[in-house]
Amino acid sequence: MSGAASRQPLKVALLGCGSVGSEVARLMTTHADDLAARIGAPVELAGVAVRRAGRSRPGIPDELLTTDAKALVKRGDIDVVIELIGGIEPARTLITTAFEHGASVVTGNKALLAEDGPALYEAADRHGVDLYYEAAVAGAIPLVRPLRESLAGDKVNRVLGILNGTTNFILDKMDSSGAGYSEALDEATALGYAEADPTADVEGYDAAAKAAILAGIAFHTRVRLDDVHREGITEITAADMASAQRMGCTVKLLAICERAADGRSVTARVHPAMIPLTHPLASVREAYNAVFVEASAAGQLMFYGPGAGGSPTASAVLGDLVAVCRHKLKGGNGPGESAYTQLPVGPMGDVVTRYHISLDVADRAGVLAHVAAIFAEHDVSIDTVRQQGKDGEASLVVVTHRAPDSALRAVVDELRKLDSVRGVASIMRVEGE
Amino acid sequence: MSGAASRQPLKVALLGCGSVGSEVARLMTTHADDLAARIGAPVELAGVAVRRAGRSRPGIPDELLTTDAKALVKRGDIDVVIELIGGIEPARTLITTAFEHGASVVTGNKALLAEDGPALYEAADRHGVDLYYEAAVAGAIPLVRPLRESLAGDKVNRVLGILNGTTNFILDKMDSSGAGYSEALDEATALGYAEADPTADVEGYDAAAKAAILAGIAFHTRVRLDDVHREGITEITAADMASAQRMGCTVKLLAICERAADGRSVTARVHPAMIPLTHPLASVREAYNAVFVEASAAGQLMFYGPGAGGSPTASAVLGDLVAVCRHKLKGGNGPGESAYTQLPVGPMGDVVTRYHISLDVADRAGVLAHVAAIFAEHDVSIDTVRQQGKDGEASLVVVTHRAPDSALRAVVDELRKLDSVRGVASIMRVEGE
Repeated sequence: MSGAASRQPLKVALLGCGSVGSEVARLMTTHADDLAARIGAPVELAGVAVRRAGRSRPGIPDELLTTDAKALVKRGDIDVVIELIGGIEPARTLITTAFEHGASVVTGNKALLAEDGPALYEAADRHGVDLYYEAAVAGAIPLVRPLRESLAGDKVNRVLGILNGTTNFILDKMDSSGAGYSEALDEATALGYAEADPTADVEGYDAAAKAAILAGIAFHTRVRLDDVHREGITEITAADMASAQRMGCTVKLLAICERAADGRSVTARVHPAMIPLTHPLASVREAYNAVFVEASAAGQLMFYGPGAGGSPTASAVLGDLVAVCRHKLKGGNGPGESAYTQLPVGPMGDVVTRYHISLDVADRAGVLAHVAAIFAEHDVSIDTVRQQGKDGEASLVVVTHRAPDSALRAVVDELRKLDSVRGVASIMRVEGE
Repeated sequence: MSGAASRQPLKVALLGCGSVGSEVARLMTTHADDLAARIGAPVELAGVAVRRAGRSRPGIPDELLTTDAKALVKRGDIDVVIELIGGIEPARTLITTAFEHGASVVTGNKALLAEDGPALYEAADRHGVDLYYEAAVAGAIPLVRPLRESLAGDKVNRVLGILNGTTNFILDKMDSSGAGYSEALDEATALGYAEADPTADVEGYDAAAKAAILAGIAFHTRVRLDDVHREGITEITAADMASAQRMGCTVKLLAICERAADGRSVTARVHPAMIPLTHPLASVREAYNAVFVEASAAGQLMFYGPGAGGSPTASAVLGDLVAVCRHKLKGGNGPGESAYTQLPVGPMGDVVTRYHISLDVADRAGVLAHVAAIFAEHDVSIDTVRQQGKDGEASLVVVTHRAPDSALRAVVDELRKLDSVRGVASIMRVEGE
């Protein structure tokens, strides 16, 4: 270790000093000896770009603070840039500028990677530097490295995950207490699990960005945020949760990336779904994240842990920092990204899964026969039907066998036209069986 | 990809062609294009060392087969040696010979790494080649890479895992069916989960070797098989399992590697223990493996998957093959191993945990007072006591608060001397709370 400590330090620029950034700076100090031993040389914080000047940051010498991020990444003596400001611009320009000046980049910026990852991977490769981003997906859970490296000799067929802690907290609360969506959201907000504007979480944008990144790595192809089918959880009701429970299920917001059966395309989607209580993802509580990976040779793997938060995310950033610093010191670089399979992303209509459909119908003879005929017409095979009636109104719950999403959509369109169907109360996919 | 395919192939020697080796050879053929794209050059099987000559292996050209493993690793044109013969010798000599001839090594040999890992890591480092071994611990579950790389910027405090599929199958069977140990072992043997001689599994040797490897990586120090306290599952009875269930627990064979509270030493141990049903490890069924990792910044992470079997283990081998081939092609090498913390391994007596002790006692007044006095004398605080009596005989179940193992041992020694204690029926640790 004395050998490591006596070498020239590697210089690190930190862009952004919020909850993750300040924790990264803190850990770089408290773990300095361990980092030096593991890398082979000390790492030194050489500059910290912040939005507002004039405010001291505990543990960070004032002279390191700057509001000029651009000048910092252009300094020329920086070995690694840690980008934690998020969003598309100026993050993208700062990262590419860092590459041009020979610095490797560690980032947790899921929005940017989901939007423009491949161009950035290529830019890093062109400049012979690294772009690492374990922190962009599921916080501290090692997921990018296992998919890019551990499973590099295998064929991943499916990634099925809970990638957003806020929505998992809300759904878990609804499941355990019988609360409705708004009530559960209020509790999440009060406890700090949901932001004042929860749109990015509850509408599934956050999970969709992570799904795009994971699908790209898992299938070695390009998947952008716009390619991901996205539905949020705002319309999930206490009644939906109760229906799920009656089926021995719970409701989770799932991100699902799949290779098509013929292997010629992939799909990526984020939506609420029922999963059986016997599935390991069903027992992921509160704001935890977990990801199931199915690979040809490895079989089923699961990765579980805290998906957000300053400390867990900082842990992921520092793991990447050690890797890129080692490359700076000893040569080599990370596996880079390959989109060599060039598999196209199929539309949601191609997705094949099961459905749980809840209908409000007139309570009279023959309704089930009409409804069943429409399913049959579109080749959507029915697994079970449950009828419940009172006072001339009745509800009909249909659970199907596996069918393409497009066929199910056609069924629902026709059901809506039936006189005897007063309304389609809910449609939910059933996964993990 | 045409770029990758047109490069000089990297040459791979395979030592051992059993269930894992033959699967590695098969996947190298079926995934050849993917491997070439991910590595940047094709990989070619250049020789396969087998024990017995004259037998064809499906999918492997006869001219690649040899019984002279030593000559194969000395050929000089081999880039990577995959060692899957297991055991200490000749595996050790073959691996070091491979290093001397410039080859990197991928191995699944837990016995050798637990015995002599540090010397081998150093030898690899000295020769500027890689030693990778994801397959040595928990089959397909990415565990070595997450610990060595993803958590490289964090501080691991505890690793708690189910590392042996055979014993997990047996205990799961006992838990779900009420079967005794022998009956559950018979079923495991009949289904192929236990070998004809199950000693290495049921006595905990297999899990202890893996625990030694994990403890070394997690704490950056040297832990050998002999440093690991080891108890098997052969004495677990249906009554123990029933006691566990009464406490809302189940019994698992756990491997536990911990940093001492003062940070100055580590401990590693394998023994059966009760864990609460609410702990994620409690729901690991059949022959699956799972490992909980607790780190200062990351918090609690869990990794789950198939811990053995030809295909899953081959997946781990191929992931490592891609990594070491990339290094051969593009420079750099793996993180290597560091034992820089030089933390000593403490004795079992230093371990602090809770205990569940079952005593057969005389059914008369004053017994509990005598028993409780002995616990108090050794500062072992009692959490709960349950008494059950019939016909002059009674059982007393004591569950303690956390106490050092040495204190508990002293308590048990004195209990055995008490007239009113007819016998100590079982002592089991309680973990995961």
